[in-house]
Order: sequence, then C-alpha cells, then structure tokens
Amino acid sequence: MSSTTEGLTWDRIQEARTRIKGKVHRTPVMTSETLDSLAGAHLYFKCENLQKVGAFKARGATNAVFALSDAEASKGVATHSSGNHAAALARAAKLRGITAHIVMPTNAPKAKQASVSRYGGRIIFCEPTQEARESTVARVIAETGATLVHPYNDLNVMAGQGTTAVELLEDYPDLDMILCPVGGGGQLSGIAVAAKTLKPTIRVIGVEPAGADDASRSFRSGHIVPMLNPKTIADGLRTSLGDKTFAEIRRHVDDIVTVPEEAIISSMRKIWEVLKIIVEPSGAVPYAAVAAEKLPVKGQKIGIVLSGGNLDLDSYPWISAS
Amino acid sequence: MSSTTEGLTWDRIQEARTRIKGKVHRTPVMTSETLDSLAGAHLYFKCENLQKVGAFKARGATNAVFALSDAEASKGVATHSSGNHAAALARAAKLRGITAHIVMPTNAPKAKQASVSRYGGRIIFCEPTQEARESTVARVIAETGATLVHPYNDLNVMAGQGTTAVELLEDYPDLDMILCPVGGGGQLSGIAVAAKTLKPTIRVIGVEPAGADDASRSFRSGHIVPMLNPKTIADGLRTSLGDKTFAEIRRHVDDIVTVPEEAIISSMRKIWEVLKIIVEPSGAVPYAAVAAEKLPVKGQKIGIVLSGGNLDLDSYPWISAS
Repeated sequence: MSSTTEGLTWDRIQEARTRIKGKVHRTPVMTSETLDSLAGAHLYFKCENLQKVGAFKARGATNAVFALSDAEASKGVATHSSGNHAAALARAAKLRGITAHIVMPTNAPKAKQASVSRYGGRIIFCEPTQEARESTVARVIAETGATLVHPYNDLNVMAGQGTTAVELLEDYPDLDMILCPVGGGGQLSGIAVAAKTLKPTIRVIGVEPAGADDASRSFRSGHIVPMLNPKTIADGLRTSLGDKTFAEIRRHVDDIVTVPEEAIISSMRKIWEVLKIIVEPSGAVPYAAVAAEKLPVKGQKIGIVLSGGNLDLDSYPWISAS
Repeated sequence: MSSTTEGLTWDRIQEARTRIKGKVHRTPVMTSETLDSLAGAHLYFKCENLQKVGAFKARGATNAVFALSDAEASKGVATHSSGNHAAALARAAKLRGITAHIVMPTNAPKAKQASVSRYGGRIIFCEPTQEARESTVARVIAETGATLVHPYNDLNVMAGQGTTAVELLEDYPDLDMILCPVGGGGQLSGIAVAAKTLKPTIRVIGVEPAGADDASRSFRSGHIVPMLNPKTIADGLRTSLGDKTFAEIRRHVDDIVTVPEEAIISSMRKIWEVLKIIVEPSGAVPYAAVAAEKLPVKGQKIGIVLSGGNLDLDSYPWISAS
C-alpha cells in the first residue's frame, strides 16, 4: 500500500509500460499542415481518443488491475465513476477475469451505463451525491474485499497515464512542450514525471477550462483548492485535484493555463473538421490554449494530448437547436 | 493521350505509387473488436478520410498532375467539380507550382469553394447545369491550353486511386474481400485492377446507395445506365460511370450491391462512435453493406474503404431538428 508521502517514480512508470503493453493501444500521433499554419508552430496530436475505451483512462486502469497480486485480484476491484474510468476499469477487470464493482449515480447517462455493462462490469447505483458515492463504495469494499482503484489519486493509475508521454517522446524526442488537460490530475502528473525524466528541459503545461479553474488556483496558492461549482462543457475536467496528483504537479509542471468555453467548443469543432477525428470537449482543451493564444508557441514543437473521444452524438455544442 | 480502348494496367498503378509517394499519406488501417463482434467478421478499415484533403481523391489528382510533361504542366490543369476532386486537384497543382482552373456551379457550398481557394485554385463559376459545366470547362481549356483532369474517367486518376489497394494488401495480404463505394467508379476500378493483380482470388465488391443504383444496373445490364435523378445523402456517389471506369469494373469487379439510406446514416454514426473518426456519408456506404447484411461476411477478413471525411458539421442526418 502506498502512503500519501510516497511519490510517483520513473520506475513505476517503466513497470506500467511493460505491464500494459499489448493490453492497450500504442496510439498514433497526428499532424496537420493546416493547424500548424494557423498556430505558427509544429503540433503533434497524441490520439488517446483512439485508445481502448476511447480514452487515456484505459492505461491507468489496466496498470492498476494488473499490478494486483492474485490474492488481491481474486476479490475484484471497485470504483466510483460515471465516466471513462468506469469503462476502463470494467474492461481491465474483464481482461484479468475478475469483477469490477462500479458505483454510479442513478442519473448517469444510459450510454455510460451501457459501456460498463458491455465490458461485464457490475453496476451499483447510488444517489447522485458525493457522500452517497463514497459510502456506497465503502460498503461494496467492506462486503467484497475488492481493491479501490481511484480514478486519478492512485500511483499506479498515474503511472499508467504517464506512459502516454513515454510513447510521445519516443516518436518525437525534440518536443519543446507538452500540453495536457487537467481535471483530477492523474494524466498531467503521470505525463509530467515521465516527460521531465526523459527530457528535463521540456515544458509541461496543464490546461483547464476557466469555468473549472481549481488546478490553476491550487497551483498558484500552493494548496488544493476544491472545485465546488464547475461550469464547463468539459465534463471530464470538473473534478478536484488529489493529494498524490497535486504533489507531482507542484514538483514537475511548469504552468497551468485556463481557456474559455467558446475556445473549447471551437477547438473541438476544428479538430473534427481538420483532423477528421472525434474528440470530446475535455480532449479539445489543450488545443484551445493554442488556438486562443493563451501561451507563446511560435516556432515551437508542441505535443498536444487529445485525451478522449467519448460523447453523446445526439447533440453538438455548436448546434443550438438540439 | 489514352484512347477509350486502352485499359488500366498494373504498370500504370505501380508508376502512380512511385509518383505520389511522399505527396499523399500512406493512410492507416483501423480495426475494432466491437465492430468485428457485431459483424462476426474481421474488418480492416482503410482510412482515406485521413488522407490529404480528407479524401482518396488526393491520390488520383496528384498522380494525374505529376504525370504531365513540363510543357503540358506549364499550361495548368482544369476540371469541373464541386467536391473532393476539386480540392485535390487544386492541392496537387499547388504542389507542382501550376494553376488549377476549377469550374464550379454558382450554388456550390461555401465550404467547398473555401477548400479550393485555400490551395490557390482558380474558381470559375457557371450555371448549375451539366451543359454549363461542360461548356465552361471547354472554354477554359481553349483559352489556357490547360489539361483536363476528369474526376474519375481518366486512367491516371484511376491508377492513383488503385494505390489504396496496394497499401491495404501490403498491410493485410490475407484479405478475402474488399468493399469499396462506387459513384463514377474511379476508385472501384483502380482498386479492382490492383487487388486482382496482387491476389487473383480476392473478391472486390462495389457498394452504392439504393437511391443511386446506376452502377449496379449498369453492371447487370452490361451497358452504362446513366444516373438521372439520384436520391441519396451520399453526395459523392450521385454521378454516373464513365466508359473507362465501367470497362474495368465489368472485367474485374465481382459484384455491386446497394444499401438503403437508413443503413448509410446509422453506419456513419456507428463509425463515428466506435472508431472515433469522421467519415462522410459516401464513405460509410461500404460498411453499411456489412451492417445491413447485404452480403455474406461471416468469419471473413474484409477490407473496407472509408473513402472520405468531408462534410458540413453544422448538421447531422440523425438530428432531425437541424
């Protein structure tokens, strides 16, 4: 068991790399003359939207599940999530042949329930409050002995997410900067540790919606500022930082910038139109920092993490009628 | 100059391969456990929606432009098209540093005009009738000495499109079948010649909308049946076959099947949702033949050509309100 004072090590990320190999995709990197020309920079889009389950969450969940001893694994895993982590954990558990207990609020979208069920996850519904979620998970764990796999505040989850940067820097070792979304901070912290180990001169920047700017405020104040009332279309980035993720972010991340909603929506559309790939609002946030000129990028080589591609195709933020 | 009796040769496709290398993408092939499981087959999606200009048309246009002698090239190229071929020809001409004269109807969508202009193409507007298009192109050619590059009924264009199958069979030599959309037949004829040369036992099947079933009727009757009043969302497949494309299709294609509009729309959405990539209606037509069970596929390895990804993101066929 890891204590809160233990940090994320490079060794743990390397172990994650080996452990998840063949169980998740090595995702492609896309480039575009059109987007480069608009930015006046060289952009390298790491396509985690094309990852298993449609999001980077497959990496961390798979690493956490396969890091368990056989004795631990036999009792299953548990989490509370109605998002990509839930599907990722259900899939990883299925790969290992164990049970994933997923606590979800009763108002979770049908599509999210369906993706957990498709992977054979056991869904336990609870009232849509943070207290109900936590008490329900605690009860499930007490009853089953399952191991909690937190969506982000877990060193093995963070290590798994960090493998994204290892692949990106293998493909493009001369990057000047990596832009990564920040919600709970699992991906940003993993990427920061990996990237700074491999290339100490690289800049790692977190990007978050202005309407959910807790990470930016936490980074500036030096203590975790919880996100109480997030207002953003980027549903994956509404969470607050955890103590483990914040510790790495303070140590390794160069800055956290915020972007307005209009930039998130127009950036999402631009990626769909030009790269011809589906990115969810949260996944468009780092490119929005470039498009909205929130940081200097001219002439630089910039890795941009497209973190996921899961969203409801029945409506689009740029179609007001729906 | 090629006569109508000359056919598309394997040599011409090999020359095209060499000529366009580095000027267009070698596109990726995507697979999906989810879609395989739904089909009961192994599906290999050749992503021409991720091609330069967002469509396979980049291959043929680039081959045709770079096949010109310097003397021919100096006078430019011309075509009538309001679709992907127009943008592809403009881009290829820009790469060679020559002028592309693009005749477009006055009612062509602004987005199509913009994509031609972005590549520096010279747009000449005409009335939105077939007669006006042809007479305007003839006038432009008379005035400039430009070479006509027909959107599909041109051996160099067909040869360029055929390179798609060469790449696909290099990556997956044990395919049992290739499914390809058919409009004017440039892509289907090129792919059929290439695939049957490389692997005579492979089956090559054309797929078209039931509302634009001229290729199927031509194939069955043995003579070109023109498409007079096409009714389909698949705007790239509303054209009639040409004599050069039809000759190769009769010789090398095993069958042409049709799919209903509902299957095209639901297949397009399925590809967006599962593969996380944008495919235009025409590009979803071959997968629709699998989804709608229009041919036996169980247990087989099937190459599916996703021909393009250009469409207006302001509306979606599955959102009735817009």
